[in-house]
Amino acid sequence: MAPEQGTQDRLNARLEPVVRLLDRIELVEGIARRQSTGRTELVDALTHRQVLAEVGKRLASLPPADVAHLLESVRLDQRRLAWEQLSSAAAGLVAWELPPAITEALVEATPRARLAEIARSLDADGLAYLAPFLPAEVRAEVVAGLEPRARAWLAEVAAWPEDSVGRLMSHELAVVDGGETVRQVLLRLRRGEGALAQAETLWVVDGRDRFLGAVKLPALLRTPLRTRLEALADPGVTTFGPLEDADAVARAFERYDLPSAPVVDGRRRLVGQLTFDELAHYARDRAERAALRRAGLRGDEDLLGPVWLGARQRWPWLGVNLFTAFMASRVIGAFEGSIARLVALATLMPIVASIGGNTGNQTATLFIRGLATDQLSPANLATVAAKEAAIALVNGALWGGVLGLVTFLLYGHLGLGLVMAAATATNLLVAAAVGMAVPVAMHRLGRDPALGSSVLLTFTTDSMGFLIFLGLATVFLLD
Amino acid sequence: MAPEQGTQDRLNARLEPVVRLLDRIELVEGIARRQSTGRTELVDALTHRQVLAEVGKRLASLPPADVAHLLESVRLDQRRLAWEQLSSAAAGLVAWELPPAITEALVEATPRARLAEIARSLDADGLAYLAPFLPAEVRAEVVAGLEPRARAWLAEVAAWPEDSVGRLMSHELAVVDGGETVRQVLLRLRRGEGALAQAETLWVVDGRDRFLGAVKLPALLRTPLRTRLEALADPGVTTFGPLEDADAVARAFERYDLPSAPVVDGRRRLVGQLTFDELAHYARDRAERAALRRAGLRGDEDLLGPVWLGARQRWPWLGVNLFTAFMASRVIGAFEGSIARLVALATLMPIVASIGGNTGNQTATLFIRGLATDQLSPANLATVAAKEAAIALVNGALWGGVLGLVTFLLYGHLGLGLVMAAATATNLLVAAAVGMAVPVAMHRLGRDPALGSSVLLTFTTDSMGFLIFLGLATVFLLD
Repeated sequence: MAPEQGTQDRLNARLEPVVRLLDRIELVEGIARRQSTGRTELVDALTHRQVLAEVGKRLASLPPADVAHLLESVRLDQRRLAWEQLSSAAAGLVAWELPPAITEALVEATPRARLAEIARSLDADGLAYLAPFLPAEVRAEVVAGLEPRARAWLAEVAAWPEDSVGRLMSHELAVVDGGETVRQVLLRLRRGEGALAQAETLWVVDGRDRFLGAVKLPALLRTPLRTRLEALADPGVTTFGPLEDADAVARAFERYDLPSAPVVDGRRRLVGQLTFDELAHYARDRAERAALRRAGLRGDEDLLGPVWLGARQRWPWLGVNLFTAFMASRVIGAFEGSIARLVALATLMPIVASIGGNTGNQTATLFIRGLATDQLSPANLATVAAKEAAIALVNGALWGGVLGLVTFLLYGHLGLGLVMAAATATNLLVAAAVGMAVPVAMHRLGRDPALGSSVLLTFTTDSMGFLIFLGLATVFLLD
Repeated sequence: MAPEQGTQDRLNARLEPVVRLLDRIELVEGIARRQSTGRTELVDALTHRQVLAEVGKRLASLPPADVAHLLESVRLDQRRLAWEQLSSAAAGLVAWELPPAITEALVEATPRARLAEIARSLDADGLAYLAPFLPAEVRAEVVAGLEPRARAWLAEVAAWPEDSVGRLMSHELAVVDGGETVRQVLLRLRRGEGALAQAETLWVVDGRDRFLGAVKLPALLRTPLRTRLEALADPGVTTFGPLEDADAVARAFERYDLPSAPVVDGRRRLVGQLTFDELAHYARDRAERAALRRAGLRGDEDLLGPVWLGARQRWPWLGVNLFTAFMASRVIGAFEGSIARLVALATLMPIVASIGGNTGNQTATLFIRGLATDQLSPANLATVAAKEAAIALVNGALWGGVLGLVTFLLYGHLGLGLVMAAATATNLLVAAAVGMAVPVAMHRLGRDPALGSSVLLTFTTDSMGFLIFLGLATVFLLD
C-alpha cells in the first residue's frame, strides 16, 4: 500500500459503512425468519427499520456519483434496498449517474407514485433525461404538472433524433443581450439571477435571439464597465447544430478541450448549450456499450443482474458463433479423405487458422481506431492499405518460413513444411485484406466498424486457413 | 448528406486546402525531377517555395488541434513538410496534441536548433510535457536559459513517478490568500494579474500556503465586498495528492464531472492543479494505447508510419501466438491415432474450441469492464463468479445439446453426438472460469487485465477444447 491514500481508497472508505449496514439487514432478516415468535419479530422489525433509516442517512450525505457507484457494485436485493432509502430528489440525480440498464431495472421495480415524485423533483434537463425510462402514465402525469416553458422544452428535446446534439443539450442558459453593458451584466451576476448564478461563460445574443459570441467571466471582469457586451463577445467560439451527431460532437469537445459550447439552429438562434460533463457522460456510456457489443454482449449487460437474463443475452452471439464455427468445420469435412491419409494435417491446420485470425485482428484494430478518430479518410486509404499489405507480405514470408521449418523438423516431411509455409503466408495476406475490408465496409454502411468485425474476421481466417492449407496439401502432397 | 454540416465536415473543409497544397508540392517536385534543364528548375524552385509559404500561412490560421489532426492523417513525407512550415510557437502547441509516437518521430527528424527554439516558446507546463521527447543536450540548453522558478518546476515535475498526478499537474495557479477580501480579489482579477487572468476557480490558501478551499467566480461576484476569502472558500472540494495514480484520478474526474481540482501535498500545501482537459488528454492516450496493446500492437503504432517498423512491432505478438497455437496443436498431435481411426473428430474439434474461446471472451470482457470501473470488488467477486458459472451451466446444457443433436444427425453416430454435447458443455465451463480468473489475476498483479487476457484465454480454451473432446472420444468411442 502506498502511504498516500488514493481516490479509490477514499471512495471505498466512504461507501464501506453503508455496505456493512446493508449486510447487517440481511443478517437481521435471516434471524427473523428462523425465530418466528411474535416478540422477536417485533424487536427485529424495529432493528430492521433502524438500520434502514441509518442507511438512508448515510446515503443522503454522499454525492450522487458515489451512491450510483454503490448501487452498481452491490447485490441485486441490496441495490433495491439502498435505492428505496434515497430521497426522491437524490434518486433523480443518482439515476442520471447510473448506466441506463440499471436505471431501467430500478424504475421497473419502483411504485408509480414514487416515480412521479422523483420525476417532479428534477429540473427540465434532468427530466428530459429520465423521461424515456418512465411508464407512459407517469410521464403524462408529471408533464401535465409542469409549467408551460418546461413542458415545451421537454417536447422539443424528445423531438430531436436519438444520438443528436438536440437530445443532449441543456436549456439552463446564461444568456445576455449584446446591448447590455458590462456594468449591467455584473449587477445581474451579483444578484445571482437564474442561470447566471452558476455560469462561467455567458452567451451573448442580439435582439432576435441570434448568437453573437461568448464572454468568459475573467474577460468580463477585466473590461471597462461601459463596454457593451456585443463589443466584447468572442464570435470565434465553436458552435454546434441540434441535428449534429452527438458522437462527432463528443470527439470535437475532446479535440478542442471545450468546457462548454452553444447550440445554434440554422438561423444562428441560440437554442441550447452543451457542457463537457454531459458529453463525457454520453461518450462513456457509448464507449462501454460498444466494448460489450464487440464481445457480443448486449450493451447494457449488468454484472450483478439475474442469471437467466445474462444467459439469454448471450444466445444470439453464441448462435452466430456456432453457425460460423460449423461452416468453417464443413471446410474441413470436405477434406476428411486427405486427413485420413495424412493425419498430421489435422494437427497443423489450427495453427494456420489461428495465426490468420490474430493478424487480421491486429489490422482490424488499427483500422477501427483510424476510422473512429477520423484519421483514416478516403484520401489516404490507398496509402494505408498498401502499407498493411506490405507488412503482411514481410511477416508472411518470415513467419511462414519459421513455421515451415519447424514442421519439417517435426515431421521430417519437406513437402509438408513447404505447404505449411505457403499456407501461412497466404492466410496472413487474406487476414490483412479482411481486417481492412470489414471495418471500412461497416463504416461505409454507417454501422459501428468494431461490431461484427471479429465474427466475420474469425470466420474468414478460419475457413480460408483450413481451405488453403488442406487444399494445398491435397493438391501437392496427396494427388 | 445531411443538410446541416457536421463538425467533421467543417474540419475537413478547413484542412482540405492544405492537403491540396501538399499534393501540389509533390507534383511540382515530380515535374522538376523529369525536366532537369536549369531554367525549369529555377521556376519550379520558386513555385515550390511559394506553395510552401502558402502552406505555412494556412497552418498558422488553424487551431493546434486541427494541425495535429492533419499531421496524423497525411503521408509521412507530407507530415514532415507540414511540420517544417509551422512556427516554433505553433509547433510546440501542436506537439502536445499529437499522439506521443508521432511527436517522437517528428522530434527525431527536426534539427536541434529548431527544437531548442520550439522548446523555448513553451511555458513551464508545456515544456514539462515536451522535455522527455527532447535530446539531452537540447533539454540542458533550454533549461539553462529558464528563469529559476520555471527551472525548479521542471525539475519537480520530472521527479514525480511516471503516470502520477505530479507529472500531469500544472503550476499556473490562481491562488489567493484567505485574508484578502472579495474587493481586493476583484481588483486583482480586474487587473488580470498572472494566472488570475484566465481562472474560473480560485484556490484559497492560508499564510503558510496550506489549501483552505475553492471559490468559483460566480460565487465571488455574489458575495459582499468586505467578506474575507477564507470565509467564502468551499473546503469540501475534491483534492488529490501528487503521488496518486493518474488513471484513478482521471476516473474520479469523470465520475464527479470535475472541471479542475487542486493538488495538495501531505501537509495540505497547494502544489499544483489539475484540469479536465489535461486529464482527458491523458486518459485518451492511455485508452488508445490499451486498445492497441490488447491486439498485441505496441501502444504507439502509427497508421501511416514506415512499413518495416509496423512489421517489426507485430513480431512479439505473432511469436507468442505462434507458440501458443503450436502448443495447442501438440494436444491434437497426441491424439493423431484417434483421429486416424475416426476422422470426423478432426472436423468437429475446432467447433468445441471456437465456442469456448467465444464464451470465455464474453466473460473476460465483462470482468475487465467491472475491474476498470471498480464495480467488481473483493466483496462481490463471489456473487458475480457464481452468476457467471450459472450462466455457463445453462448455456452449456442448451448449446451442447444443440451441437450434440446436429452432430448425431450429420454423422448418424449417437456416441459422437453425446461426446460432442459433453465436450461443448465442459469447455463452456472451463472458458467461463478462465475468463474470470485471468483478468482478476492480472489485476491483482497490478497489470492491465485487458492485456494478455485474450492470448491466455484462447490458448486455454483451444487446448482444453481439443483435450476434452478428443479425450472423451478416445475413452468412450475408441477404447
